[in-house]
Amino acid sequence: MDKLSSLCFLIVSIVTVLLVSRLWFPIFVNLPPEDMNDEKQSFEKHISLMSKAPHHPLDPLTVQEINKVRDILSSYEPFSNSFPTIHSLALEEPDKSLVLSWEFGNPLPPRRAAVIGILYEQVHVLSVDLELHRVIRHTANPTSGYPMITMEELLSALDVALANSNVQKSIHARGVKLKDVRFLSPSPGWFGKEEEGRRIVKLQFYSIQGTSNYYMRPIEGLTVTVDLNKQEVVKVADTGKGIPIPRSTNTEYQYNGETEPPEIKKINPISIEQPKGPSFTVENGYIVKWGNWEFHIKPDQRAGMVISRAMLYVPYMDFDEHWYFKTYMDAGEYGLGLLSTSLVPLNDCPRNSYYMDAGRGEARQKVTLVARMVSTVGNYDYIIDWEFQTDGLIRVEVGLSGMLMIKATPNEYAVNKDNEGFEPLVSENAIGVVHDHYITFYLDMDVDGVNNSFVNIDLVKEEQVDNKSPKSTPRKSIYKPYKKVAKMEDEAKIILSLVDPSEFHVVNPSKLSRLGNPSGYKIVPTATAASLLDLDDPPQIRSAFTNNQIWVTPYKKNEQWAGGFLTYQGRGDDTLATWSQRNRPIENRDIVLWYTLGFHHVPCQEDFPVMPTVSSSFDLKPVNFFDRNPILRAAPASVDDLPVCNARSSLNF
Amino acid sequence: MDKLSSLCFLIVSIVTVLLVSRLWFPIFVNLPPEDMNDEKQSFEKHISLMSKAPHHPLDPLTVQEINKVRDILSSYEPFSNSFPTIHSLALEEPDKSLVLSWEFGNPLPPRRAAVIGILYEQVHVLSVDLELHRVIRHTANPTSGYPMITMEELLSALDVALANSNVQKSIHARGVKLKDVRFLSPSPGWFGKEEEGRRIVKLQFYSIQGTSNYYMRPIEGLTVTVDLNKQEVVKVADTGKGIPIPRSTNTEYQYNGETEPPEIKKINPISIEQPKGPSFTVENGYIVKWGNWEFHIKPDQRAGMVISRAMLYVPYMDFDEHWYFKTYMDAGEYGLGLLSTSLVPLNDCPRNSYYMDAGRGEARQKVTLVARMVSTVGNYDYIIDWEFQTDGLIRVEVGLSGMLMIKATPNEYAVNKDNEGFEPLVSENAIGVVHDHYITFYLDMDVDGVNNSFVNIDLVKEEQVDNKSPKSTPRKSIYKPYKKVAKMEDEAKIILSLVDPSEFHVVNPSKLSRLGNPSGYKIVPTATAASLLDLDDPPQIRSAFTNNQIWVTPYKKNEQWAGGFLTYQGRGDDTLATWSQRNRPIENRDIVLWYTLGFHHVPCQEDFPVMPTVSSSFDLKPVNFFDRNPILRAAPASVDDLPVCNARSSLNF
Repeated sequence: MDKLSSLCFLIVSIVTVLLVSRLWFPIFVNLPPEDMNDEKQSFEKHISLMSKAPHHPLDPLTVQEINKVRDILSSYEPFSNSFPTIHSLALEEPDKSLVLSWEFGNPLPPRRAAVIGILYEQVHVLSVDLELHRVIRHTANPTSGYPMITMEELLSALDVALANSNVQKSIHARGVKLKDVRFLSPSPGWFGKEEEGRRIVKLQFYSIQGTSNYYMRPIEGLTVTVDLNKQEVVKVADTGKGIPIPRSTNTEYQYNGETEPPEIKKINPISIEQPKGPSFTVENGYIVKWGNWEFHIKPDQRAGMVISRAMLYVPYMDFDEHWYFKTYMDAGEYGLGLLSTSLVPLNDCPRNSYYMDAGRGEARQKVTLVARMVSTVGNYDYIIDWEFQTDGLIRVEVGLSGMLMIKATPNEYAVNKDNEGFEPLVSENAIGVVHDHYITFYLDMDVDGVNNSFVNIDLVKEEQVDNKSPKSTPRKSIYKPYKKVAKMEDEAKIILSLVDPSEFHVVNPSKLSRLGNPSGYKIVPTATAASLLDLDDPPQIRSAFTNNQIWVTPYKKNEQWAGGFLTYQGRGDDTLATWSQRNRPIENRDIVLWYTLGFHHVPCQEDFPVMPTVSSSFDLKPVNFFDRNPILRAAPASVDDLPVCNARSSLNF
Repeated sequence: MDKLSSLCFLIVSIVTVLLVSRLWFPIFVNLPPEDMNDEKQSFEKHISLMSKAPHHPLDPLTVQEINKVRDILSSYEPFSNSFPTIHSLALEEPDKSLVLSWEFGNPLPPRRAAVIGILYEQVHVLSVDLELHRVIRHTANPTSGYPMITMEELLSALDVALANSNVQKSIHARGVKLKDVRFLSPSPGWFGKEEEGRRIVKLQFYSIQGTSNYYMRPIEGLTVTVDLNKQEVVKVADTGKGIPIPRSTNTEYQYNGETEPPEIKKINPISIEQPKGPSFTVENGYIVKWGNWEFHIKPDQRAGMVISRAMLYVPYMDFDEHWYFKTYMDAGEYGLGLLSTSLVPLNDCPRNSYYMDAGRGEARQKVTLVARMVSTVGNYDYIIDWEFQTDGLIRVEVGLSGMLMIKATPNEYAVNKDNEGFEPLVSENAIGVVHDHYITFYLDMDVDGVNNSFVNIDLVKEEQVDNKSPKSTPRKSIYKPYKKVAKMEDEAKIILSLVDPSEFHVVNPSKLSRLGNPSGYKIVPTATAASLLDLDDPPQIRSAFTNNQIWVTPYKKNEQWAGGFLTYQGRGDDTLATWSQRNRPIENRDIVLWYTLGFHHVPCQEDFPVMPTVSSSFDLKPVNFFDRNPILRAAPASVDDLPVCNARSSLNF
């Protein structure tokens, strides 16, 4: 047990909590300074936004609509005796064709809610039509797995655990008072028969004594399994006796002013200014317009931030050039509910982002719009940026920060032997557990229309065979790009390789440029990671979507979550990998591109007591989508455009 | 010939020009606005800098010192009859031990110049001691290859070519007037016996008629080889008859104001402000101090920008923690002389860079110092950023922009067949030639002292063998980091692999943290590319340093250029790959880390007529170098730190 528990996927290191209330928009970074530090105001703004009538088919449910759903469910006959716990209640998006054909001014397509509830251990998945005022679809237990547990369930499970005398004894034996106990509930995953049929939670404990950063002080080797239905302790695994709780020294991360000598010299304040204001507007709450971009952005309980109908207008082109994709961040792979965290203004977000691009003899500023979301999932922070550039490029960047998952060890000093596996010691008695992160992006690409193809551009070595010909040269080898259209899903299951490189294009084979090149976008990976686990290991069966970095599937409304619709304790029977086994046709169809960004994390001392942000990204980049470089007709910036600034402190504000 | 010439390395697409005079510093981005657009002033500043006495062992030669070298060489007996053409004249850096032991206030180690000259086709490599006032070392033809050709040689070769009647006939036959001819001189490389023993240049031609961007208008299939010594045309290869010169339409990239409708909506001006001024200082011309960083930066004729003695001060640590590395950018691999280009202020460089990093509950601004260099090599621009972060991380980013190498074709319309190699058509009759870029970085890492080791941290899958033991769990596989110290060079020749991942650390095995972890830095690659050519193909023999992404060698003063000291027409007999064949010991020694950043470039319409910048990067990141996360004691930014700005145009300035 020891050896195997020392290394784990993120799957066992996160709290799965579902909070609707804390989802609001970091895109409002240009609030006047008065509002900036006021999280409450920001929340109220969001609530007032939620009170307005919907303006767009993809606008989230309003407070009024949510109340209406509750009314409908209250009088729904199957729930007349007992009402289910509601685990999720959100807009059920209209069919894609309705969204695509809808125009401003049209009436909205019928508003529907997707609801997931639990009643007597049964999972109920419902579709509620707000106009018909009734449940129009109801399925029980569609697949294995459960929805994410609620905060209420989690807290009551904690009460059950801490009321257990064995648990109390174990905690006291470690010298920890019950009032100092804090916890995490790593999702239990699925590991075969033993726990099937029971909805459970596994609790692990920490001591907050002497620090606010209790994640650094694990009570090692104590895991309590609670049955959520029966509200009883199923198992107390206590194998950590004698392992000390790592000390609290140096675990604080809050700035403590002048009490300690600064480690880093003071750097003069720096600020990004737009004296004429921002160039983007947010219309009707959810439509963002900036430069030639327009998109719909909404908070999502599971994905965090959903960007839909992203369109790039190119006024000088002949035909109506636009494209669309809906971008879900599938955090559901591990049962994560990505929680939006309010951003600390002026620290998390600059007033605007600023990047530079060089031309020749003359240059253009590269100014980009960033839609940023920060989700705190237990001890971890995920920072997800969607960066839209004027040249049509979209950069998606994921940053990881927060607290390490710490494992306590009797060792105060690292064992550092060559040619041996090791567990990184990041502080006295504290091991930073090695782990991976995988973030899968659902990219519903519609390049210049709905029907697209996925094209591998393989770079293939060619040798000069006939070196006796009069036309031959002393060169022995070159490489050439080869175009291979993926006809079936299996031809689009991509494992990236440095020595066998390809480009990956999504093109519209019916939209050719004046030169005959199909209009396209390519996905450009940078650093990523692949899972090292056995394919038949239960965690890998559940996260089999990491078996490839890229997958392409035909668009299906109900295939949105790479890890399956119900991931909590799910068995991997409803995932991207299982859908894709059918090897369906994908050529010249409505297709979805899936990209998985991975990280291996071998912790080091610098990750203690809080990690510096580690990030990686991928790009979506136009290829033959424009007739030529589109930034050329943008005016270069001049000195006169720029503001004159005074230190704020010198003014009475 | 046709098939093979259509794809080529950058090796055949650049001008190799050597200009000492245009090397100055983009780091001065905080000049007052009055100076910003004045390239001439900037140049004069540099010249005045070069007139001052040297203050540091690594300061470049001053104008006085250069004149002194010329005096010494003028009276040098072997050159009494005829004086060589000087191809390079620069500081010969003192031995590393002298640089490391030198302190401010000490007298400088003896100043020496390294000179490369050519006389009667012989290459002369000299070391001139300025204090002894004499040549102290002189070698003729140390290896194959020549130094980069001078601008004077290039222009005289052009005169020779254009005076040739066959060349004139060919150009007239394409309908181009001689006055409209422009040229590039792709370096000829080395392809076996035929051209050995002759110092040559190959010229290719363009028409500037109708555009300033003549790179888009190649006179296809005309290559003139000129012998630089005999000043005669050796060969006129004219196989492009009938291939049209691509049209000039839409090839301009200069902003033409209001004459065309804008393709991109106007975005409000944006600026990055530091009302209290920048936080960095430049002392004695070449020493940059910022935050806890200090380094020496100097222009280099070949490498562009050399950063030396980069040190990070950590005041709270017990022992004197510092580290050192000298960082050459080895553009010599293809005989490139990277030329610094003056930056367009407010466009290429923000007044300051601004990045953000999120903590938990509280956050810290991430402010970084960027040393940027832009080099224009013929049609290509290289943008190289060294970004120093307060947390000890160094990010090195390379951006590529400029003009594509265009090949003319009879086709106006793209041939787009599946499962066939293709040549990307980027405009009518214009193929964007597929090519690679490799930039090799010389990183003389001295982590906490000179003697370091290179450690592979391999991530290795482990399976749970005994699943019947009472301690067994349902988990089948995990991975563990394994530490493998590279004892010999062969153990540090790394080809990156996604499915077989490792971390790569440079550690000081004698400097252990309080936890027993060796102090280290790791190199973190992101997107890169590997060469696809045959290993025995002449271009690959010359650039064999791309066979691995990482190499480690013992420090040797004369092993600085991955492509060899003399690369022009060099045969690859003096490169990183040949030195490293000796498989020398590298454990616990003064070692050099080599990293090659690669790009495959398959052009598309968006790359015409000027490419958007494509970039990639790698990081050097502390691992167990600090006792804990070093950014914690930096104060978070507050609203009061930030300036109040007014639009510049509203003030009389």
